[in-house]
Amino acid sequence: MTETLEDSTARHAHMIEAAIAAVSSRKSWSPFRDSPSAKFHAPGAPEAGKAAFHAQLGRPFNLEQPAIVGRSGAEISPFTRQPLGIDYPVSDPSALIDAAQAAMASWRHVDPEARIALCIEMANRLYARNFEMAHSVMHVAGQSYTQAFSGSGPNALDRGIEALAYAAKAMRDVLPAVRWERTFGKEDVSLDKCFRLVPRGIGLVICCASFPTWNAYPAMFASLATGNPVIVKPHPIAILPMAIVVQTCRNVLADYGCDPNLVTLAVDTLEAPIAQRFIDDPAVQIIDFTGSPRYGGYLERTVTGKLLYTETAGINSVVLEGCDDLAATATAIARATCLFSAQMCTSPQNIYVPADGIETADGHRSFDEVAVALVAAVDAIADNPSVAAGIMGAVQAEPSCQIVRNLAERAAQNPDARILRAPTSYPHPDHPQARTMTPLIVALPAGNAALYAEEHFGPVMFIIAATDRNAAVEEATRLAREHGAISSYLYSNDDAFIDNAITAYEGSGMNLSINLHGAMWANFAAAYSDYHVTGLNPAGNACLADLAFVASRFRIVQNRRPTSRKADAHAA
Amino acid sequence: MTETLEDSTARHAHMIEAAIAAVSSRKSWSPFRDSPSAKFHAPGAPEAGKAAFHAQLGRPFNLEQPAIVGRSGAEISPFTRQPLGIDYPVSDPSALIDAAQAAMASWRHVDPEARIALCIEMANRLYARNFEMAHSVMHVAGQSYTQAFSGSGPNALDRGIEALAYAAKAMRDVLPAVRWERTFGKEDVSLDKCFRLVPRGIGLVICCASFPTWNAYPAMFASLATGNPVIVKPHPIAILPMAIVVQTCRNVLADYGCDPNLVTLAVDTLEAPIAQRFIDDPAVQIIDFTGSPRYGGYLERTVTGKLLYTETAGINSVVLEGCDDLAATATAIARATCLFSAQMCTSPQNIYVPADGIETADGHRSFDEVAVALVAAVDAIADNPSVAAGIMGAVQAEPSCQIVRNLAERAAQNPDARILRAPTSYPHPDHPQARTMTPLIVALPAGNAALYAEEHFGPVMFIIAATDRNAAVEEATRLAREHGAISSYLYSNDDAFIDNAITAYEGSGMNLSINLHGAMWANFAAAYSDYHVTGLNPAGNACLADLAFVASRFRIVQNRRPTSRKADAHAA
Repeated sequence: MTETLEDSTARHAHMIEAAIAAVSSRKSWSPFRDSPSAKFHAPGAPEAGKAAFHAQLGRPFNLEQPAIVGRSGAEISPFTRQPLGIDYPVSDPSALIDAAQAAMASWRHVDPEARIALCIEMANRLYARNFEMAHSVMHVAGQSYTQAFSGSGPNALDRGIEALAYAAKAMRDVLPAVRWERTFGKEDVSLDKCFRLVPRGIGLVICCASFPTWNAYPAMFASLATGNPVIVKPHPIAILPMAIVVQTCRNVLADYGCDPNLVTLAVDTLEAPIAQRFIDDPAVQIIDFTGSPRYGGYLERTVTGKLLYTETAGINSVVLEGCDDLAATATAIARATCLFSAQMCTSPQNIYVPADGIETADGHRSFDEVAVALVAAVDAIADNPSVAAGIMGAVQAEPSCQIVRNLAERAAQNPDARILRAPTSYPHPDHPQARTMTPLIVALPAGNAALYAEEHFGPVMFIIAATDRNAAVEEATRLAREHGAISSYLYSNDDAFIDNAITAYEGSGMNLSINLHGAMWANFAAAYSDYHVTGLNPAGNACLADLAFVASRFRIVQNRRPTSRKADAHAA
Repeated sequence: MTETLEDSTARHAHMIEAAIAAVSSRKSWSPFRDSPSAKFHAPGAPEAGKAAFHAQLGRPFNLEQPAIVGRSGAEISPFTRQPLGIDYPVSDPSALIDAAQAAMASWRHVDPEARIALCIEMANRLYARNFEMAHSVMHVAGQSYTQAFSGSGPNALDRGIEALAYAAKAMRDVLPAVRWERTFGKEDVSLDKCFRLVPRGIGLVICCASFPTWNAYPAMFASLATGNPVIVKPHPIAILPMAIVVQTCRNVLADYGCDPNLVTLAVDTLEAPIAQRFIDDPAVQIIDFTGSPRYGGYLERTVTGKLLYTETAGINSVVLEGCDDLAATATAIARATCLFSAQMCTSPQNIYVPADGIETADGHRSFDEVAVALVAAVDAIADNPSVAAGIMGAVQAEPSCQIVRNLAERAAQNPDARILRAPTSYPHPDHPQARTMTPLIVALPAGNAALYAEEHFGPVMFIIAATDRNAAVEEATRLAREHGAISSYLYSNDDAFIDNAITAYEGSGMNLSINLHGAMWANFAAAYSDYHVTGLNPAGNACLADLAFVASRFRIVQNRRPTSRKADAHAA
């Protein structure tokens, strides 16, 4: 320990203030660089990170934890299709809970600003390991290198620091102590009141397989900052990134004389899941869940008396009823669908186009012309392996490919549907064994809900011929109410139509991006600025991040007593 | 409608700013007078209020509501034991829900500051009816006139305005619109983003019988301010105060051109309770419950996917291990227990005194001497009918008396227990038929959990001989963890002991008042300053009021689009 908690708090104060300023202004800000370009990083950093990842392969992951009863780990790289050969400690769940509770006993008394500073220190150290993290995320999740670097690195860390900003705001809203004075009858009463922030209990962070860090950081930091220990439960096919996170956090805690058991890893297997064991434990008071709508929905229907924050998935849609430049718009849509092979919570799946076509700056375009443009835009990505590799990465798990192949079969048997593009694989330039799949594209009229009225977790784009643009918005918003939606997209040149649509999307609790194309990905969600998930439809109940995400993670306990003469003299 | 919404917003702006300043400083503040003394009120106001109450007796309550299918009402005054003879409209629940949803459609688009202003207007008009309210609360709940005036009037309205202050803080935390700019590669991207506050859905406010307005105002105002309609479900034996509230709120809404169905009354009977019908309805998204631990606990164990805020009850304790002036301390404890015949959520029940006595400024006092002082302090209230009437009021319901009589029988049969004071009635000077009961006082050693380890809703004080002061704190805090506690009291002259005790009480999520006596009631909870209920033990899950009480009652929906050239020119 080379720095005291107090010094750490002072050193990181500027960053939490800057983060608070960012969430308050919603302007673009980040303390990190989200490009892996060598010019932004120390010489040798990319190579060192890659080497650290490779050095880990085939070895036990070094993580000291309480009550290790075994080791587990069966990750397989979607790029090499080879096992990573890493195993992780499996701790007895009761022992993890006991250790977390024991750690909370002192953590709750640590100055909230110091807790925040330690979370920032964790973020900084994770950023310092980000090249290693990028390779780790690549080889468990299938994200491309650049996406793994940015989306699972700085963009995710920013979400974590954003949550810290809200935690700071919510906790600072409670004064630590005040003097209160009032006259009752003829008596002047003076009381000294103390208000203490008290954590609720253990926070369980359940991570998804495809994007483990993005939701984990805000959940972990929000709970830790407010005094709660966290137990991280990674998806059994994507443990390594979260093991790195837990290791890093534990090192930070130990370095500052805090109990490392404030952050522990709960490893399980697909065959013997462990999450429910923790959820049912009375000591677990906060559950942050990212994952399938099936389990997330189950939790939403069954968890009582605890805080539950969920992000699951939904049917993201595009309504394309007009644009200036069809090719640019088609490219924006194609890129959003292709990014990480549509394995993102923001990937659009259902593209609504009026059956009688759309207006563009270059004149009318028929439905089929729009469809052709979309296919061409996807082809432009899919047919260029190095572009495809950078955008699509790999498909994490075989079931996603099977889902898409099954859809292709069902579409082939559906007389209404036309397969415009088959889900081929592309040859990855660096990893010939990579599990890749380019999007299936199906054109079909609205009304074929059996095909498109659910989220298919894999690369598929439905181009849906809507009766008209109003019907398109009606169906897109109705499906979001029923099945959820996280990101929605609208292309139109008609301001009055847009205004009406905004009301309709708002009515289904849908965040809407309008007419986005160009260098920024349409499905890019900016920390500190874009609120992610509304909590108003089945895609999740929590928002990254707002006051509601943090304000209930701690409680307030007060004491009060008459102002003493001694205190009076001291104050005077 | 003589004033526009905009003018109302401007006129009330100073009050919400003052309320925000108050919750931020936690200093004493109120826009209202909490004394019924004629000198603070307009000439004739007390008489007019009393006359309004009497004019209502024996008549149908005039409340226009949707889909009235019948009338109901069987309130009986605890003071006169006569039926009030008032009936209230019973509306079809589905129609109330439909009407609330229809009303929400426009209310959600009303400027949040205007919604807050209308809630302040409601509070002001309720304050203007406060003499009528005082008589109404008296004759359904049994509160004394002065307590009904203050505790159910200004003190409750203050809690409501306090919730408005937090609603304002939470909503103002979300900017309505920003311009966001960032460079991606070589492209400067500029987006205009709009962030809209969206209500969650209908708020159901379930009121308790003994103190209906105190929790109702914060719940109603928190939901209304954040855009949600409310359905008020009063306890069937205490409808009138909430009918007055609903009537007043509806009048305000109508006066400002808003849909009065934003606030409706759902009347039921003891035989056919209706709350669950609303709780189970998908349109009801927020439930504020005040009442029995039995039903509150049931809701906490069963409600999923909705916001649930509860305040139930607990075992409030005093640990008396030392004091300067025993008589003054005994008086403070006696007054807290006697206030409203111990029918308050803050009433102390279990008084722990070390078996070997306590130290005072006047020397050692044995356990029995302490007990004698406590009995004498209760007698000083109970033996003076006009004092008793002002403090104790009446017992609302016969079961409370029966609980205390049963306890007296059980204590008489318990060889460890000594009945120091029988639960007699006192003659009420104004209402000879009043249901009154002075406290049963039982002295007994610790360990008789069967007698005192639950909340007895009626006037009873257990003076418990603890092995020592540490054992006293241990048991008081343990019972709070198991059964809840809302207000706890400690008397000690030993600062080190107090410091340790504070940690122990904090560990059980107990708000603690230390060494309080004198003109301020020890169980007085000041709006804007004292956080009421910690949410950390079974006495409830919500706090009046903090950010967590309001921050989840609304959600954020955003849209974003490229900055248009037109907007650029406009901004320049």
